[in-house]
Amino acid sequence: MHNITCRYSTKNQKKYTFPITTIKSLVTDSTYIGKTVTVHGWVRSQRLQKTVTFIDLDDGSLLSGLQIVMDSSVAKTLTTGTSVKISGKLVPSPSKNQAVDLEAIDLTVLGECDPQSYAISKNRLPLEHLREYQHLRSRTRIFGALWRIRSAALQGIHDFFKAQEFTQVNMPILTTHDCEGGGEAFRVLTDDTLKSYQNYAVNYSQTTQHQALPLPDEFFGKPVYTTVSAQLHLEFMASALSRVYVLGPAFRAEKSQSTRHLAEFWMLEAEACFIPTISALTDLIEGNIKHVIQHVLNTCQEDLALFDQFSERDLVQKLDNVSNKLFERMTYTDAVQVLLNAEKGINGKRCAPEWQFPVKWGLPLQSEHEKFLAETIIKGPVFVTDYPKKIKPFYMKQSGIGNTSVTKCDGETVACTDLLLPKVGELAGGSLREDQYELLAQKINDAGLDSAQLEWYLDLRKYGSVPHGGYGMGFERLLGYLTGMTNIRDMIPAPRSYGHCKF
Amino acid sequence: MHNITCRYSTKNQKKYTFPITTIKSLVTDSTYIGKTVTVHGWVRSQRLQKTVTFIDLDDGSLLSGLQIVMDSSVAKTLTTGTSVKISGKLVPSPSKNQAVDLEAIDLTVLGECDPQSYAISKNRLPLEHLREYQHLRSRTRIFGALWRIRSAALQGIHDFFKAQEFTQVNMPILTTHDCEGGGEAFRVLTDDTLKSYQNYAVNYSQTTQHQALPLPDEFFGKPVYTTVSAQLHLEFMASALSRVYVLGPAFRAEKSQSTRHLAEFWMLEAEACFIPTISALTDLIEGNIKHVIQHVLNTCQEDLALFDQFSERDLVQKLDNVSNKLFERMTYTDAVQVLLNAEKGINGKRCAPEWQFPVKWGLPLQSEHEKFLAETIIKGPVFVTDYPKKIKPFYMKQSGIGNTSVTKCDGETVACTDLLLPKVGELAGGSLREDQYELLAQKINDAGLDSAQLEWYLDLRKYGSVPHGGYGMGFERLLGYLTGMTNIRDMIPAPRSYGHCKF
Repeated sequence: MHNITCRYSTKNQKKYTFPITTIKSLVTDSTYIGKTVTVHGWVRSQRLQKTVTFIDLDDGSLLSGLQIVMDSSVAKTLTTGTSVKISGKLVPSPSKNQAVDLEAIDLTVLGECDPQSYAISKNRLPLEHLREYQHLRSRTRIFGALWRIRSAALQGIHDFFKAQEFTQVNMPILTTHDCEGGGEAFRVLTDDTLKSYQNYAVNYSQTTQHQALPLPDEFFGKPVYTTVSAQLHLEFMASALSRVYVLGPAFRAEKSQSTRHLAEFWMLEAEACFIPTISALTDLIEGNIKHVIQHVLNTCQEDLALFDQFSERDLVQKLDNVSNKLFERMTYTDAVQVLLNAEKGINGKRCAPEWQFPVKWGLPLQSEHEKFLAETIIKGPVFVTDYPKKIKPFYMKQSGIGNTSVTKCDGETVACTDLLLPKVGELAGGSLREDQYELLAQKINDAGLDSAQLEWYLDLRKYGSVPHGGYGMGFERLLGYLTGMTNIRDMIPAPRSYGHCKF
Repeated sequence: MHNITCRYSTKNQKKYTFPITTIKSLVTDSTYIGKTVTVHGWVRSQRLQKTVTFIDLDDGSLLSGLQIVMDSSVAKTLTTGTSVKISGKLVPSPSKNQAVDLEAIDLTVLGECDPQSYAISKNRLPLEHLREYQHLRSRTRIFGALWRIRSAALQGIHDFFKAQEFTQVNMPILTTHDCEGGGEAFRVLTDDTLKSYQNYAVNYSQTTQHQALPLPDEFFGKPVYTTVSAQLHLEFMASALSRVYVLGPAFRAEKSQSTRHLAEFWMLEAEACFIPTISALTDLIEGNIKHVIQHVLNTCQEDLALFDQFSERDLVQKLDNVSNKLFERMTYTDAVQVLLNAEKGINGKRCAPEWQFPVKWGLPLQSEHEKFLAETIIKGPVFVTDYPKKIKPFYMKQSGIGNTSVTKCDGETVACTDLLLPKVGELAGGSLREDQYELLAQKINDAGLDSAQLEWYLDLRKYGSVPHGGYGMGFERLLGYLTGMTNIRDMIPAPRSYGHCKF
């Protein structure tokens, strides 16, 4: 009936395979040896000799790239950054630096690269310089390695939660809630709404009949923000699926220029029902982190070795130790005592550095205290649990018998934990959640929050409430720990922070 | 030196295991039969008989749940939604509806559930009703199944790209770009900036010295938006790592109330270097979708069977067919001809429905045309390729020899594709990208865009440019195809659309 002679097809592939072979495949699969193959990539560097030239070719799949051996007369024009397609024969390398070489037979230059204006050279460049060229920096060894480790760490997280029977969910970015009430959420609106606010302000300034003014027109009918945490939303998914996690972006409108904060970052958040104690929660966090470390150790040896040289001596050894050792635990109360003892020192000789912030039960632990605990006292990861309730958010459950192994149940602390790491400081934070309706309603009231806006959250305690808990972990901080890199702006491809939003 | 006697630990676990056993494990692992086990979950329904009561218990891990057999004197208070912890003996079930039963020995009610006010009953409820209770709807069979399929589909996507050696990356949500220039991006600012804009408007209205007014103060130093597509950013990662993909949220400030659009949704975007033709790109998209379908078919049989009954007859058969059959391909030019032929019909009898929008070469295909092509003409997925350049974005490469198998290279079409599916309409769209500096600069100019703002994007064509292409796919639409569900607001846990942002 219809003219459909124009239908055309390629081959039906039961199992799809991408039509280009990566350098990683060529180097790691010995069946390619002796065969004629085609590679695509960018020239990283070249060593020009009289008759032959050695080219270090990179396609992003493997740190060490592929060594191309070719006639020097052809190779002369191949500057760093030039993209090429090369066919040739893969042969065992006479050099001990690599297993195979490609003896080039045919070369096509895909795109030239002007060495005068190209911001990336074959030499090592400072990270600060590269941060100015975010769209090109991934072509360096260090960032190539970083993004492969980042991808492996994401994979490791998914693998862990799959094995532990968690369901992956996606929680909203746009929300009417400012989760912890810090006032650090970004407002989201349309251009029309912005104009509407401006008109409203002008009309307001020109009249005394304020009540008659039409209110600014919001796209969603009310103000919305970018999320600072998915936790509250995640709890409603947990209350149906038992175990859930979300890996997604989160935002902070903090005017911070520190090396530890971003305005936009990725966060892992997990929530589990029926989890009985804070120890069970710390075990889960520990299991998660160790799994990711092991996964990265298993899949990114070559890339990790680069960071071992570049950013942290004995990085691989550190990761290996940590993935096999029990993480320490101590209560906040004990941590404060340890810090005070270190202040007091032995025979009046202080064992701790001079701190900017005081140490006193009831005050938050500052980054300097956290690092001292993890780096100097424990010399490794440590969970600090059972903080004073006054310095923690409303939704945390009171510490109690069964919740913790150590703290006396004096009603002043909550069943929560922060995981502290050497150099990184706080990596993850979690708690058991208040699961009793009346207690939660009271806490919402005490915190001066709008209980009508949190009615849905209270509902979870009204209809089949269960003990549950969860945690959040900053993904870029984890990546810092995995690579020994110290500036969080290097941990994410396109960093956003106060005053900075490149493209 | 320091007092660290307060350190305490739980057992060092080489391999972590979550301490609660899911219903899914109990039902699928026969080694539990005959053992005393403990389960946690919510009562879905109960059948009260004289001496024993049968309870259908749900913990979110398995659609069919677990049948509990218990003494009726105890079970009386257990209404739908009540959370419980039950210990008992797992025994082979005498019923043919399930493999095992749990004979309850001990029961603890964790949280009661008032049946009078509880919005979820054991009976089937309309989706519209459940949409009003987003925080509770996941406890129904249908949404539990949906979120398990969603999680499996996410997993299937990650598995596919890992096997094809793609690196997973995260691209920015906050951006200074409005990718395709549609003006549908949300503005992001701080409360301070909003006040600053209001003050500016008031001051502007009260003075004629406009040039002397201090400009509104932006957190990032310039206006930023939530992303509508990660594509341009993704290209800079592809130009270093060759193959990359991103699975993240995207936003549209469209005042649409349709069943196919959300203001916030999840999108898969993939970009691959050295991909030679539009056929190679359609093969990649096809491979991706088939892999996800097969993964969901393999891992979610029980959940899919529910949708087979609930939302689409022969859903499983459809998915099975599609995952084994070649997707059709046709050019836009041929698609228009097919539509015109269907209009003309046979012996003057129209074969197509009356359309709201005209069919003419050079005009976009509307949703009604796309569905007719996929549903009536092809009766399955179809790639339409090589659309007129005038209706496509600036970055697409001209169709040409090698790019497509069919279209004559007349310079009026671009090497792009939309994948159309029955019922769903457009699921994915992709293209080869213009990789020549001069041509791209010209297109930017022709489109009236600011080439200074796109200088970084042009750089990718200046320094080692390579042929490349990629695509985007709306994840919620894919989920609609996988489940036969028709309203996109049911495909995401907390839907946001014009006028709607619940909590």
